[in-house]
Amino acid sequence: MSWSALDNQMMSRAIRLAAKGRYTTRPNPNVGCVLVKDGRILGEGFHHRAGEPHAEVHALRMAGEAARGATAYVTLEPCSHYGRTPPCALALIQAGVARVVIATEDPNPQVAGRGSQLLRDAGIVVDLGLLGAEAYGLNLGFMKRMQTGLPWVTVKLAASLDGKTALSNGVSKWITGPEARRDVQRLRASHCALLTGVETVLADDPGLNVRHGELGSLGLSLSETELLQPLRVILDSRARLTADKALFSIDSPILLVSCRAYSAARLAQFPSHVSCLQLPGEDGRVDLAALLAHLGRSCNSVLVEAGATLAGAVIERRLADELILYQAPKLLGGHGHNLLNLNDYQAMSELPHFELIDERKLGADRRMTLRFG
Amino acid sequence: MSWSALDNQMMSRAIRLAAKGRYTTRPNPNVGCVLVKDGRILGEGFHHRAGEPHAEVHALRMAGEAARGATAYVTLEPCSHYGRTPPCALALIQAGVARVVIATEDPNPQVAGRGSQLLRDAGIVVDLGLLGAEAYGLNLGFMKRMQTGLPWVTVKLAASLDGKTALSNGVSKWITGPEARRDVQRLRASHCALLTGVETVLADDPGLNVRHGELGSLGLSLSETELLQPLRVILDSRARLTADKALFSIDSPILLVSCRAYSAARLAQFPSHVSCLQLPGEDGRVDLAALLAHLGRSCNSVLVEAGATLAGAVIERRLADELILYQAPKLLGGHGHNLLNLNDYQAMSELPHFELIDERKLGADRRMTLRFG
Repeated sequence: MSWSALDNQMMSRAIRLAAKGRYTTRPNPNVGCVLVKDGRILGEGFHHRAGEPHAEVHALRMAGEAARGATAYVTLEPCSHYGRTPPCALALIQAGVARVVIATEDPNPQVAGRGSQLLRDAGIVVDLGLLGAEAYGLNLGFMKRMQTGLPWVTVKLAASLDGKTALSNGVSKWITGPEARRDVQRLRASHCALLTGVETVLADDPGLNVRHGELGSLGLSLSETELLQPLRVILDSRARLTADKALFSIDSPILLVSCRAYSAARLAQFPSHVSCLQLPGEDGRVDLAALLAHLGRSCNSVLVEAGATLAGAVIERRLADELILYQAPKLLGGHGHNLLNLNDYQAMSELPHFELIDERKLGADRRMTLRFG
Repeated sequence: MSWSALDNQMMSRAIRLAAKGRYTTRPNPNVGCVLVKDGRILGEGFHHRAGEPHAEVHALRMAGEAARGATAYVTLEPCSHYGRTPPCALALIQAGVARVVIATEDPNPQVAGRGSQLLRDAGIVVDLGLLGAEAYGLNLGFMKRMQTGLPWVTVKLAASLDGKTALSNGVSKWITGPEARRDVQRLRASHCALLTGVETVLADDPGLNVRHGELGSLGLSLSETELLQPLRVILDSRARLTADKALFSIDSPILLVSCRAYSAARLAQFPSHVSCLQLPGEDGRVDLAALLAHLGRSCNSVLVEAGATLAGAVIERRLADELILYQAPKLLGGHGHNLLNLNDYQAMSELPHFELIDERKLGADRRMTLRFG
């Protein structure tokens, strides 16, 4: 397939539109759509929020009768099933579009191609694959979950140049600067769940929520009511947490995962937004793989904000897709806390494999994105 | 003083010329000179090697009689004393130049201004300070030594993203890639002395020399005979080194610094390019400050290539001017060796102060230059 300049331009536009839903559509994917006839844009739209109309519907409504004979550029294969909204493939057929250009197929192998087939059966020209990689990148979590049942897992860490996350006495405020800390708030806002260990809760008593006032410029385009809080998942193997911790006072879902049950008295003290799950693993710790499979039922993405042991375990067990490392221009020295507990490697060939896919400055700090292979 | 565009252009050129001597003039400073009349360059030159003519002499020879009435741009105040060559100030006077523009004064407070005064007394216009900071930066080591008697101290370290320099079993080959390792060779080639600890020698048995074949593109512009080997300084507090180590087989000066004397038998085995110095400190270790004062008699710059303890001690005692950190995109994990042993800080305010003055990619690695304040 060779694409025209107009095709490329319009799909780029659809991808930019799709990205506007980045913080609000989950667990639905980000999708954008542009309707074009005779080189003119007749309608466009993006999916904004689960339960609300899909991108195609927004674009068709804007175009009205003019959609007849038009080309639709959509970043994801139009759906062919009745969910909370009728199938978009049907809406495109009814509107009489002549051609549909699709960036990426439906990721679910069991339904992939059905939307396209529905369109083709109605005599519509369907072209697949324009800017496919870019469109795929919009929905890494959704795509992985649809294909494997597991969420995309991002490990977030912050350290000094010598790889230390805190002084020997545990002091870590602040290693990174305000720009990096705002970026972490945005990272939280873009993930379905946030995973941490009980040690972090006991040590720092954090809220583990997204604070609208700390989102920086994102706070201007995303209202406080649009903001979705990630599910806060706490690993508490030995069921040690008590209801007086700060995170419980924030009214947003919490999942406590332990190896043994909390006492009835303890459970009675937890507020109603707290659920509990027992997933004992083989080593006296929570079964991480089982937990991710559980989260994969409803979460596209999980952000691991934890200490060296939990972060290391996620990486060692090959459960991590990405590591985002904030590095501050400081030297804490050998007494400080280590960044990552990994296996006691005996050869360089045993180190975890990853690709450094992005590096940028955030104030005085540097953010690196590592993608595991 | 306001400088013309021509003034700026010519001094920039003199600075670029001076930089050509970067690997060869020590312990002399890098100096460049450009002679200009009526907007035309009549002669130019740079100091190439200690004992050979100074920059001004090269430029004056090239210009010949035409130098009369010209302006000389020199990056460092012309010398006023008889050393291995006659004073340059005198040469400029004899050639009849009309104006001398100087970037930086002589750094030795006891002779600063004498060269300028000699010129002014001869009726020459002397203008000082054009691109002074750039010219000063050419000779950080020489400048510091002339002003304080101490050499410029650069600490070089290489680590993973999590600040580890080796696996638990000591394996460190290779954390960084070939570009970074070539850069280390150039770093060695530009320093007067290289300082390391006996532990490094016992663990890795390194040659600690500059290998011409590993200089990369620098090897094309610097012949093997021009290459100056740094003085290899080994801290061996307890006089443990034996003559069978690889570094002794390379015929280039070595200074062994210990707290106690080597036995006569051991001394007899060392080759003739080895000297010994006893500098016992208070803590059973070599007195680092006294060693640097000793090296300052003949060395402009010292490169510390050592383990976490010696590198940390140099930083903690505020003896380091610069830290050059090569960081490889690898994760070694918490079992690895730490980058730096520093004090057991209890507050972020106690951390060493530095400015990150340069960052660049070298292949897959990143090189950061930290300047201590």
